[in-house]
Amino acid sequence: MPKISNRGSEMPASPIRKLVPYAEEAKERGTHVIHLNIGQPDIFTPEVALDAVRNLTDKVIEYSHSAGNETYRRKLASYYQSIGINVDHTELLITTGGSEALTFAFLSCLNPGDEVIIPEPFYANYNGFATSAGIKIVPVTSTIDNGFALPPVSDFEKLITSRTKGIVICNPNNPTGYLYSKSEMEEMRELVLKHDLFFFSDEVYREFCYDEHKHLSVMHLKGLEEHAVMFDSVSKRFSECGVRIGALVSKNKKLIETALKFGQARLSPPGLGQIVGEASLDTPLEYFTSVYKEYIQRRDFLVENLNKIPGVVCPMPKGAFYTMVKLPVDDSDKFCQWILSDFEFEGKTVMMAPGSGFYSTPGNGKNEVRIAYVLNREELANAIEVLRVALEAYPGRVSE
Amino acid sequence: MPKISNRGSEMPASPIRKLVPYAEEAKERGTHVIHLNIGQPDIFTPEVALDAVRNLTDKVIEYSHSAGNETYRRKLASYYQSIGINVDHTELLITTGGSEALTFAFLSCLNPGDEVIIPEPFYANYNGFATSAGIKIVPVTSTIDNGFALPPVSDFEKLITSRTKGIVICNPNNPTGYLYSKSEMEEMRELVLKHDLFFFSDEVYREFCYDEHKHLSVMHLKGLEEHAVMFDSVSKRFSECGVRIGALVSKNKKLIETALKFGQARLSPPGLGQIVGEASLDTPLEYFTSVYKEYIQRRDFLVENLNKIPGVVCPMPKGAFYTMVKLPVDDSDKFCQWILSDFEFEGKTVMMAPGSGFYSTPGNGKNEVRIAYVLNREELANAIEVLRVALEAYPGRVSE
Repeated sequence: MPKISNRGSEMPASPIRKLVPYAEEAKERGTHVIHLNIGQPDIFTPEVALDAVRNLTDKVIEYSHSAGNETYRRKLASYYQSIGINVDHTELLITTGGSEALTFAFLSCLNPGDEVIIPEPFYANYNGFATSAGIKIVPVTSTIDNGFALPPVSDFEKLITSRTKGIVICNPNNPTGYLYSKSEMEEMRELVLKHDLFFFSDEVYREFCYDEHKHLSVMHLKGLEEHAVMFDSVSKRFSECGVRIGALVSKNKKLIETALKFGQARLSPPGLGQIVGEASLDTPLEYFTSVYKEYIQRRDFLVENLNKIPGVVCPMPKGAFYTMVKLPVDDSDKFCQWILSDFEFEGKTVMMAPGSGFYSTPGNGKNEVRIAYVLNREELANAIEVLRVALEAYPGRVSE
Repeated sequence: MPKISNRGSEMPASPIRKLVPYAEEAKERGTHVIHLNIGQPDIFTPEVALDAVRNLTDKVIEYSHSAGNETYRRKLASYYQSIGINVDHTELLITTGGSEALTFAFLSCLNPGDEVIIPEPFYANYNGFATSAGIKIVPVTSTIDNGFALPPVSDFEKLITSRTKGIVICNPNNPTGYLYSKSEMEEMRELVLKHDLFFFSDEVYREFCYDEHKHLSVMHLKGLEEHAVMFDSVSKRFSECGVRIGALVSKNKKLIETALKFGQARLSPPGLGQIVGEASLDTPLEYFTSVYKEYIQRRDFLVENLNKIPGVVCPMPKGAFYTMVKLPVDDSDKFCQWILSDFEFEGKTVMMAPGSGFYSTPGNGKNEVRIAYVLNREELANAIEVLRVALEAYPGRVSE
């Protein structure tokens, strides 16, 4: 019997995957499971986007250009220009979700064994893209004590080796909700210039910045034309997670040219998704205003009420729709399993993502969970109540 | 300025890519360029598939299951069962095109530096997937003299090393149109069992088998439950190249479980494409009958008339819609460029894929081109006429 590869064996499963059977058993028992674990918004996809596929007149669904339809690329470039990102349609590739943008960038910029430094906690799937590309993620730890601000530049510098090829940030951040400030971005700018590194920035939550905090893109930074690489996606902005359309953006022409070769091998990004993505750029402003209001209310409600639970600490997220929350528990992996398998309150329980899955450093995140506030307030209220009672009942509760 | 990776630099560009500027210049001069170079059929996508997206009622385009929607997987498994392939919905993953199925299989089964043996000429994008996965393709040469039949098993055995993890075939074959016989498949079965190798079979052209030749799937072979891996796609079967939906099929549970981890990292296959793919399984039989008839007529017309051109040899393809054709030229890379840049006949010219791009062995395929017969007969007739006159005029013509 032929063997699976080592990288296949080492490929990390999703941090939530272990919990899925427990959630399913809970549902089978008739318990209502409130999903705080995934970033699948309940927000409707814009009508203008849905109409674009409903009104499809094509007779053949053909391959598109490997870089994506030119009409879409031009329109997307115009959108970037409208937010001060000076790129044209030759400086971006349409990809199969933000995921493929990361994969193409890693393959194009790093050799096997090369390293990227990423502030942890970070989006768990970066581990999977790193394993696929045979590269190493070197974590630099951020902490809940300052709301997950950028670690000091000196912490990054200690980790830079001859194999370090880049820094990866997610801004606004999944899982912390942190938004990097202008001065933090400028510090990183100096760092990548000093060490001649790529600066990869995952900006799929760009539109979700709260309280007048302004998003600064890696593409806004001066003098980084050859270093800055932006990842984007329609998934969150337009609640189109399923269409699998993203973008890889850079003014580094050699990089785009190289990434396009990986794009040519897979022929083209999804055609129907591109139609949806292109039409989405005509979404009326009111859509975003109402979505924005909804998230602000959800966030404020969630954070205020979580912090009322004894022992719970939840920093105020400045962007995205996640928050890393500190719980008074011995081990959040155990707690997240227990709350599904051994607990319910008034017929309900909650599924959360254990913090450990978002850290590379062993032992980190053991008393944290990631909560996505992509549900309506009634569900959020139910979830908070379940969590409050569960923390009282949990045998592994610890006091501060 | 940070450097592109070595694998990025070494990543092969599409063999046709070099010709694209010449084709565009020809079009700008007003020349009608007939595209024999790509497998983009002009056949209409089934109405039932287009209707499925036109009638979309979803309000949110959500992530699907990472393995693909369960309804689709169950229906696809039923289709496989109907053609004698005994798999259930847990033994297949829906992928982003056949491309992703290959990538997941290579990542799951091979470590960097491991090898697969592939009969050449082979589908050029296999090179790209190999570079992405850091594996090595070892070619075993098939020849136009016997219509690109399977090379003798002894030729494979000479190439097997401790790094060899599998054999890859494409059946029916792109680019040769060859269909592997029962006895050839049985020989391969013995070979992979003897050396405990994976047997990867790309079967995206399964429905395109002509002259009562019957397709034998790798999944039909007895005793290969742990070894057989099938790649599939809706692209050609339903003329849905643009939806980017494929499948990875295997009864090796460890392999499917491992590939799913790569699938989880990229979240889900395209959602709208899955709707199209699932609905396509209800395509009425008449659709295939009429498509089949059309391709048979195109093939017969093309092959008969190509062989009438002095010095041209075109074996009769048994499947798919490609043929590798021997031309009386010094170098088909030069000829394919010349016919675009320096030639036209009655305002027309043709774009073909040079043979060299389909071979790994340097120097092979220099007098061959791949022709796709995905155009209507009028265009094929025009193309043949252009080719006939061009071969008379080409300065690099060689006599047999």
